[in-house]
Amino acid sequence: MSKKVRTMKTTISNEQLTSAISAVRDRNPLIHNITNYVVMNNSANALLAIGASPVMAHWKDEMEEMTSIAGALVINIGTLDDQWIEGMIIAGMAASRRGTPIVLDPVGAGATSQRTATALKIINLCHPTIIRGNASEIMALVNAEIKSKGVDSIASSNDALDAAKILAKKSGAVVVISGETDYITNGNETHTVDGGSPIMTSVTGMGCTATALVGAFTAVVEDPMVAATAAMAVMSLAGERAALIAKGNGSMQLHFLDELYNLRAETL
Amino acid sequence: MSKKVRTMKTTISNEQLTSAISAVRDRNPLIHNITNYVVMNNSANALLAIGASPVMAHWKDEMEEMTSIAGALVINIGTLDDQWIEGMIIAGMAASRRGTPIVLDPVGAGATSQRTATALKIINLCHPTIIRGNASEIMALVNAEIKSKGVDSIASSNDALDAAKILAKKSGAVVVISGETDYITNGNETHTVDGGSPIMTSVTGMGCTATALVGAFTAVVEDPMVAATAAMAVMSLAGERAALIAKGNGSMQLHFLDELYNLRAETL
Amino acid sequence: MSKKVRTMKTTISNEQLTSAISAVRDRNPLIHNITNYVVMNNSANALLAIGASPVMAHWKDEMEEMTSIAGALVINIGTLDDQWIEGMIIAGMAASRRGTPIVLDPVGAGATSQRTATALKIINLCHPTIIRGNASEIMALVNAEIKSKGVDSIASSNDALDAAKILAKKSGAVVVISGETDYITNGNETHTVDGGSPIMTSVTGMGCTATALVGAFTAVVEDPMVAATAAMAVMSLAGERAALIAKGNGSMQLHFLDELYNLRAETL
Repeated sequence: MSKKVRTMKTTISNEQLTSAISAVRDRNPLIHNITNYVVMNNSANALLAIGASPVMAHWKDEMEEMTSIAGALVINIGTLDDQWIEGMIIAGMAASRRGTPIVLDPVGAGATSQRTATALKIINLCHPTIIRGNASEIMALVNAEIKSKGVDSIASSNDALDAAKILAKKSGAVVVISGETDYITNGNETHTVDGGSPIMTSVTGMGCTATALVGAFTAVVEDPMVAATAAMAVMSLAGERAALIAKGNGSMQLHFLDELYNLRAETL
Repeated sequence: MSKKVRTMKTTISNEQLTSAISAVRDRNPLIHNITNYVVMNNSANALLAIGASPVMAHWKDEMEEMTSIAGALVINIGTLDDQWIEGMIIAGMAASRRGTPIVLDPVGAGATSQRTATALKIINLCHPTIIRGNASEIMALVNAEIKSKGVDSIASSNDALDAAKILAKKSGAVVVISGETDYITNGNETHTVDGGSPIMTSVTGMGCTATALVGAFTAVVEDPMVAATAAMAVMSLAGERAALIAKGNGSMQLHFLDELYNLRAETL
Repeated sequence: MSKKVRTMKTTISNEQLTSAISAVRDRNPLIHNITNYVVMNNSANALLAIGASPVMAHWKDEMEEMTSIAGALVINIGTLDDQWIEGMIIAGMAASRRGTPIVLDPVGAGATSQRTATALKIINLCHPTIIRGNASEIMALVNAEIKSKGVDSIASSNDALDAAKILAKKSGAVVVISGETDYITNGNETHTVDGGSPIMTSVTGMGCTATALVGAFTAVVEDPMVAATAAMAVMSLAGERAALIAKGNGSMQLHFLDELYNLRAETL
C-alpha cells in the first residue's frame, strides 16, 4: 500500500484551531444526529473521540424535546424515507426556532431527483447554519442538471466552488465542499484545508463523519466559518496520521478513530 | 494514552461465573434482538464472540414466530419510532406469555419524556426479566423528574441504587445499573461487579453490548441475578484486557470483541 | 486461537478469476444495496475495498431512479418490515424491466414463515439473476418445512445442493450456497469454491458481504455463473489471509476488509 498523505494546511490560525479543539473537549456538547444507517456507529464513535456526546434519534414524537437539549443538530439524508424526512423537518424547524445550529449533509443530492428536492426542502424550511457535501452534491443543489454517481462525487472540489458561493449567498449557510482541498465559504470569504489521504475515499461515510464533527465544533465555536474549518482540519490531521499506519480501508477506519481520540490541542 | 484499568471483582462465585460462561458456549442460545441502529453490528458480533447466536428482527408480522424460537428477547429503545415500538410490544408480550426471558435496555430514558414513557409501557406490558441501564436511565424510570444528557449518564451508579431497588420491587425485574461499579439487584439482594476501564465510555454502545450479553446469559442460566452478574463480569474482564492494548476508542471496540471471543471458562 | 484456514480452490480458471477482479477495479460499478441494518457499514466498505461504488437506499420514491443508474441491485432481507419490502419490490421490478442484474440474499428464510414467503415473493416478482444463501435458507425456499436457527444454517452446504438445483431450474437464477464448500449452480452445471476459515462464521454478516460482492462481480462479468464463483473465490482468499492474522472476530472483520482492499489480479 502506498502511503500517500498530504500535510495539513489551513487558512485559519493555529490558535483558532487549537482553541476550537479545546472547546469541544472542555464543553462536551450533546450533538443530536438524524443520520443514515451506514455511518451511525462510526459517527457516534467519532463524536466521542473528539470529546462530544452523540445521540442518534429520529422519532417525530421526541424531536422537539431532543433538539431542545442539544448543542447542535446534524441532519444527514443518506438513507431517506418519508418517516425520516418528517422527523428531520420537525427537528430542523424546532432547532431553527431556538437558534440551535444545524448542519446539513445532502448525501447523494444529484443521484436522484428526490434527494436533491429533499435537501432543498430542508434548506428552505430549516435554514441550516452549515451545509457540507462533496463537489457533485453541492453543484446539484445549485443546478438540478448536475448528476452524482450514487453517493460519490464525479467532480473535484475546485469545480464546485462557484456553486458553493451561490448556495451560501442564497441560503445564508456556510457551505463546505470536501475533497482533496476542502473549501469553506460564506459566499464572500473562503477558507481552505489541504491534507488527508486518498485512502479516506475508500472508507464508507468519511464525509458523514466530517459532517458530524462540523456539528460538534459549531456547537461550541460561535463563528460557523471557523467551526467548519476547524472540523475539516481535524479530519485532515486524523486522516493523515491514520493513513501512515493503515493497511487497507478496514484498519484506516479504526486508526482514524484512534487518531481522533488522541488529537489534543496541546499536541498539535 | 493512560492505561487505567481496574481488576474485575464480583460477588458471585468463580464457579458461578465459569459455569455461566460454559453454558453460553455449550448451548449457543439464539438471542432475538430488537435493538438500535447504532449498535446492531457490534451487538451481533459480541453475541457471536461469547458463543451465542444473534438474530436482529423487528417486523411486527414475524415477531411472534421469531420470539418463539429464541432463548431470550432483548429490547433496546435506542433509536425508537412508532413502528419499532409496535414490534417491541408484540414480541415482548409473546415472550412474556411463553416464559421466554426478556431483557430491556431503556436507552435515553430521562432524555425525552417519550423515551421514559415508552420504557415504562414496555415494563408494564411485557414484564421484563432484567432491566439494564445507566444511573440516569434507571433513576428516570422511578422519578420522571430525573434528566439524562442524551444517552449518557449524569449520575454515578451508586446514586441510582435506591431507585434500582424500588424499580426491581415494583416491576419484578432484576435491575442492573452499569457504571464504575455495576449493581445487580432484585430489591432485596444486590450483587456488584467492579472493573473495566474508563475508555469503555468512549466506545458507543458498550451499554447496549452489556444488555445483549445479559440476554445471552439469561437464556441459559436459570437465576437472573446470577445471569446478569455473570454478563457484567464478562464485560469487565473483556474491557480490562482490551483497555491494556487499546490506542483509542476505535481499537478499543475491536480489542473488546477479540477479548470476548477468547474468554473461556478454562482460562479465567 | 487456532489458525485453521483452507487454501482456496475453485472450478473456474485462474484467468476467469483475475479478469473478473480486474473488471471490478477498472469499471468501478455502482451497486445499489437494499440491505439490512446490521451489515450496511461492512457491506459498503467491502464494496469499496474491491473497487466498486456502493449506495444504500430503500425509499420507494427514489427506487426507480436509483436502480436506473446502478450496475447491479442487491436485495437482502435481513431486517425486514412492510416499508422495506415495498421498496425492494419496486426496485427489483424496475431492475428486472431494465435488465439490470439482481442478487437476492434470503437472510433467515426458514426462521420465520414470513421471511420465506417474502423471499419467494421477490423471486417471483423480480426474477433475480443470482440467489445466495446458506444451506438452511436455500433448502427453506424449496421446502417450506425446512427450518433455520435464526440467521444461521443448521445444515451443510452439500445437503442443500439438490435443493439449489431445483431452485435454480424453477427460478431461472444461479443459486449460490455458501459454506465450507460453496456451490454455485444453474441447475445443470455446478461450480465450487473451497477455502476460507471457520472464524468467518463468527463475524456477523459475512454472508451478506458475500452477496454484496456477488453484486459487484455480476455488474461487470456477463456470465452469472462466473461472476458468482469469482465473488465467492475472493471471499475465500480474503478470509484465508485475514484468518492467519486475526486474534478474534473483531480483528477478523477488520483484516478481512484490508485483505480485500489489497487483493489485486496481479498478486494472485
